Amino acid sequence: MKKKVNAAILIIGNEILSGRTQDKNLAFISNWLNSNCGISVEEVRVIPDIQKVIIKNVLLLSKKFNYLFTTGGIGPTHDDITAQSISKAFKLKYEYHKEAYEILEKYYGKRKFNDGRKKMAKMPRGAKLIYNPSSAAPGFITKNVLSLPGVPSILNSMIENCKKYLIKGLKVHSKTINLFTVESNIARNLGQIQKKYKKFVDIGSYPFFRLGKIGVAIVTRSTSLSKLKSVNKELIKLVKLKKIKILKI
Amino acid sequence: MKKKVNAAILIIGNEILSGRTQDKNLAFISNWLNSNCGISVEEVRVIPDIQKVIIKNVLLLSKKFNYLFTTGGIGPTHDDITAQSISKAFKLKYEYHKEAYEILEKYYGKRKFNDGRKKMAKMPRGAKLIYNPSSAAPGFITKNVLSLPGVPSILNSMIENCKKYLIKGLKVHSKTINLFTVESNIARNLGQIQKKYKKFVDIGSYPFFRLGKIGVAIVTRSTSLSKLKSVNKELIKLVKLKKIKILKI
Repeated sequence: MKKKVNAAILIIGNEILSGRTQDKNLAFISNWLNSNCGISVEEVRVIPDIQKVIIKNVLLLSKKFNYLFTTGGIGPTHDDITAQSISKAFKLKYEYHKEAYEILEKYYGKRKFNDGRKKMAKMPRGAKLIYNPSSAAPGFITKNVLSLPGVPSILNSMIENCKKYLIKGLKVHSKTINLFTVESNIARNLGQIQKKYKKFVDIGSYPFFRLGKIGVAIVTRSTSLSKLKSVNKELIKLVKLKKIKILKI
Repeated sequence: MKKKVNAAILIIGNEILSGRTQDKNLAFISNWLNSNCGISVEEVRVIPDIQKVIIKNVLLLSKKFNYLFTTGGIGPTHDDITAQSISKAFKLKYEYHKEAYEILEKYYGKRKFNDGRKKMAKMPRGAKLIYNPSSAAPGFITKNVLSLPGVPSILNSMIENCKKYLIKGLKVHSKTINLFTVESNIARNLGQIQKKYKKFVDIGSYPFFRLGKIGVAIVTRSTSLSKLKSVNKELIKLVKLKKIKILKI
């Protein structure tokens, strides 16, 4: 029987921390993992390009969760230090990966295969490759840590190649009902329903603004489809009782 | 003399972790803190709406950094548990804040001031208010922890009201040069320049795609304007030597 499988994401990069670049990888990875592998992301951290900070977080999060995904820091420049840091974290040699070296040499051609590009073939000893169909330089998996690049379009093109390394878990199903009401109008009832289904269903309530009106999205999430249905029946009953309009999208 | 002041951000919310909602608060808060207060964000965590997880992270991050900003979880529903959790973390009573209660009662009117809305006036004892010009419900500061809502438009409208609680630090200045080249073409030289200015300037290198071409943004960051100028002079020299085109924006 499938069980719960979880993951963390470690976003490595000064450009995200400083607010210069808007992260887009968290939402993409999290959605993909849940839909395709039944894996839930339970913690995300954004940290700077500092080796000792990377090492500490890699060790901690890889121990705490079934999988750790890192994004960023696997390019050719001096500020790309993810592979070195993971090698140090796990006390593995940081060396050329034979297949990665061949892939990159073939992609760039021998003459243009300079030091910066060669650097992208250096990984922790024993790492397995995550192939990159858009710009050749592969990601890699070291123990339960999957390292992907920071550029979203490249990361997105590689994600399917992570699949073979992942154990499948229980998918979290979710259902959203968008209501034209304010949170406080249903807060008490929602709390009661949540209490009743405490162990099985998570109920979230998120305000929105649409068509010039205030609304609330009620999001229910559960690994059990039948429990999800039961909760949503109760929600619909509540909505009818309170004469709240539903926004259909 | 001003010194370095740092901060962490704790993003509280299942909707961000699951990928349902794209976070926009990290970049906004980080940019605002640096530009307006000279405060650098050095770590960000995204965690679920689980009390013990919130408590652990609030204690840890508020100790490790000068300030901790929390986003999310201060609304009227059962899944809004930030105020309770911070109260527990610091062993403070969770109770009605007199002024917050008055503000909300006035905003909604006595008749419509229901339990959900009253909940938004409950805070850790001794908390000070962060006023909310767009939807009344205030944020609050407890010790060095500033709690803001999750909805970006509301958070943005409140950020100026955080200022009076913050000590000003050294602003990080930054300069970006966009080059039409590939990272590996300048990786070695960049590394040398970074080594020379190790303690004073951070040099980041970020690939981009624009006008159908690949390019690299070289971002230099420093609290010293003069050091930043020196580095950028060296960069321009390098660019000329390598005959690289600069993209002017």
